[in-house]
Amino acid sequence: MSLDTVLARVDADLPQALDRLMDLLRIPSISTDPAFKADCDRAADWLAADLQSLGFTASARPTPGHPMVVGHGGSGDKHLLFYGHYDVQPVDPLSLWDRDPFDPEIQDTPKGRVIRARGASDDKGQLMTFLEACRAWKAVHGTLPGRLTIFLEGEEESGSPSLVPFMKDNAAELRADIALICDTGLFDDETPAITTMLRGLLGEEITIHGPNKDLHSGMYGGAAINPIRVLTKILANLHDATGRITIPGFYDGVTELPEAIRAQWQSLAFDHAKFLGDVGLSVPAGEHDRTPLEMIWSRPTAEVNGIWGGYTGDGFKTVLPAQAHAKVSFRLVGDQDALALRDAFRAWVQDQLPPDCTVEFKGHGASPAGTMAIADPAFDAARKALTDEWGKPAAYVGSGGSIPIAGLFKTILGMDAMLIGFARDDDQIHSPNEKYDLDCFHKGIRSWVRILAKLA
Amino acid sequence: MSLDTVLARVDADLPQALDRLMDLLRIPSISTDPAFKADCDRAADWLAADLQSLGFTASARPTPGHPMVVGHGGSGDKHLLFYGHYDVQPVDPLSLWDRDPFDPEIQDTPKGRVIRARGASDDKGQLMTFLEACRAWKAVHGTLPGRLTIFLEGEEESGSPSLVPFMKDNAAELRADIALICDTGLFDDETPAITTMLRGLLGEEITIHGPNKDLHSGMYGGAAINPIRVLTKILANLHDATGRITIPGFYDGVTELPEAIRAQWQSLAFDHAKFLGDVGLSVPAGEHDRTPLEMIWSRPTAEVNGIWGGYTGDGFKTVLPAQAHAKVSFRLVGDQDALALRDAFRAWVQDQLPPDCTVEFKGHGASPAGTMAIADPAFDAARKALTDEWGKPAAYVGSGGSIPIAGLFKTILGMDAMLIGFARDDDQIHSPNEKYDLDCFHKGIRSWVRILAKLA
Repeated sequence: MSLDTVLARVDADLPQALDRLMDLLRIPSISTDPAFKADCDRAADWLAADLQSLGFTASARPTPGHPMVVGHGGSGDKHLLFYGHYDVQPVDPLSLWDRDPFDPEIQDTPKGRVIRARGASDDKGQLMTFLEACRAWKAVHGTLPGRLTIFLEGEEESGSPSLVPFMKDNAAELRADIALICDTGLFDDETPAITTMLRGLLGEEITIHGPNKDLHSGMYGGAAINPIRVLTKILANLHDATGRITIPGFYDGVTELPEAIRAQWQSLAFDHAKFLGDVGLSVPAGEHDRTPLEMIWSRPTAEVNGIWGGYTGDGFKTVLPAQAHAKVSFRLVGDQDALALRDAFRAWVQDQLPPDCTVEFKGHGASPAGTMAIADPAFDAARKALTDEWGKPAAYVGSGGSIPIAGLFKTILGMDAMLIGFARDDDQIHSPNEKYDLDCFHKGIRSWVRILAKLA
Repeated sequence: MSLDTVLARVDADLPQALDRLMDLLRIPSISTDPAFKADCDRAADWLAADLQSLGFTASARPTPGHPMVVGHGGSGDKHLLFYGHYDVQPVDPLSLWDRDPFDPEIQDTPKGRVIRARGASDDKGQLMTFLEACRAWKAVHGTLPGRLTIFLEGEEESGSPSLVPFMKDNAAELRADIALICDTGLFDDETPAITTMLRGLLGEEITIHGPNKDLHSGMYGGAAINPIRVLTKILANLHDATGRITIPGFYDGVTELPEAIRAQWQSLAFDHAKFLGDVGLSVPAGEHDRTPLEMIWSRPTAEVNGIWGGYTGDGFKTVLPAQAHAKVSFRLVGDQDALALRDAFRAWVQDQLPPDCTVEFKGHGASPAGTMAIADPAFDAARKALTDEWGKPAAYVGSGGSIPIAGLFKTILGMDAMLIGFARDDDQIHSPNEKYDLDCFHKGIRSWVRILAKLA
């Protein structure tokens, strides 16, 4: 039986696939809020049962937090692991939703039909594309499309506290030839993408201490050091006039984009004006000699994500505060060493402290950048499959964000990962009125059928 | 009858004077909190009645806020106006008080006896020094010590909203030859002072707008302008490497200290090391070629009193915020033009804005510096009187703070003001466990007797 038969089965079964997704979306599996603990359990059980119905040996496995769903099934030379997450973001502010976030609905919009609900795109809709692909395959062939392990997490939206211990404890069971991760997006509304570069992340919180108590600026203004001024001076030095970061050694390990990737990115005809215009901007703010796409996909950054100190309420208070604070984060690329950069940043701050000031640091995570193993033939195979389905050449893209799971598969299990997803930029993930396009769901299922046909 | 007789009367009557002050301190006249409206009325009535008992024609005069107490009495060539305020600061956090803030108590401390209560120093204890001086004078002479107008405000701790309208509406009634203000301190524990320079104040709140919404730094970090970075760059430019303020025209109207004042300040032997050491500092942070005393009394400043933007809660959020904010204040001296500086500051900020950013300003008051008319013989007379009482030469001092009333007497009523007060640095005004030294209260009364004997 041909691939077309399976794809026809996907098309015919779409209404039922949507019903199953809506069932899953009705479970408010908000992982960060303990009030929804039982709902997370329920979502895990629902998925384990669904996997069992597909012939997987599957169960919801307890952790100190929410369960992991693990299923094994099928046979073949190549062992594929699929990762997704069944937990969702909180829904507040609820008042900004047009309907109950856990009462999913199919809606007609000017851009086509969508499934509206929390988790529709991130990540229940996306993970179900893979399960539905398996279902259609099984219906036609009577077997799963190869040797598969399914690994579904319930804490992705709350920092994944149980993930590393669980992966370490079950390494032998989880290790496969390659991991497939469905938690990313299309390149644009019609162009499929494989994410091949992920930026790393280093987070630092700094507190500058000056006087031993808050002072009155009438009494001490001019004579006493003001920690807010110290902090602004230091942070203002983070970038030079050309947008480069000034911390010594910061660019160690930052490599130029391979020519093949650069050429491919150029062929994407990324609409820089629209990208910036969508958020009210017109001029790229990064390094002078880089395109916005490079700035967000392949160049490291330093940003101040939060700053506070002194009086911030209504009216005015002429205080010289004893402290000032900032949260600073770095997006990392290539072989930048997150821990070495933490030390370099701290030394750089320390060197700029004036007399009478001290600084306190608090680390907030450090993960290296991820570069996918695109030389693996699986990448080319998946790219062809996506191109066949979408009618447009699939793009190898970078991602400005950090998806730690890809790095963890490499460091803990020694396996490469391939990130393929079907979200659109306007899916409003993490925001009110999240949606997933029916078109993305449908073509996503068909895409996995084609990929599995090539890989497994 | 001699001056000594009046001073002896002050000494003999001290226990009763303390009882009266404690009565006034028992009234919780917190002006900023509407819950204490009736208590403010009660304090005003108490003072009007006390003035009447001294022979003043006095009453509590209604305003849209709390009443003004105005009394007229005595006769003579020279007409003196005395200003004080009967309202007090809030008491929170109440848990840091060792006793009920409105149950005053005389306490023995290692540094002498004190009156402990909210308002003991600021300003009920201070204003009562003047009334008790009048009382002793009246008891001995049968008359008040000259032509006096008493003007007591009930909104000083809440921004004085009714003050300017009341002064304008009653200008003819309030105008005198000179105003005496008792709301300042000694130079040090034993050295009396006349405050001859007050710094002005300009407050500005700025908001930098960048993207039209908060952005995710994974998605936009590097390419999108970050308002926090823009704000820190601008604020870092407020001062050059020598501590001078860089706003064009900022120093227009700033004059060097007259040689006589400079010499007198040098003779004060101000303990710079202790001044800074008390708050955990060791190095003066202002202009390189100035002493700390100049920095706080006679030099203008620019300070950031508050800054905020982005994520400031626990943990980390990789946001690029749409806005960043700061509250900036300037202490002004000499003839600096507060309104011209507001324009200059705003233009200076505007000039530094990168593309795609806008700035919004909010003004928070603008008052010029005050320089007292020390050529008026009243100053020399008061100085001699204070020197006689305290046994140490009275100092002409500056004040880093801003006391708008002194400027208002000049601009609205055309009269100069003389600021004499007896507070000590450790009085904890505006803080828990406020106190006033019995010694200050006692010598304060005696000081006014001596001053009135010379002036009125």
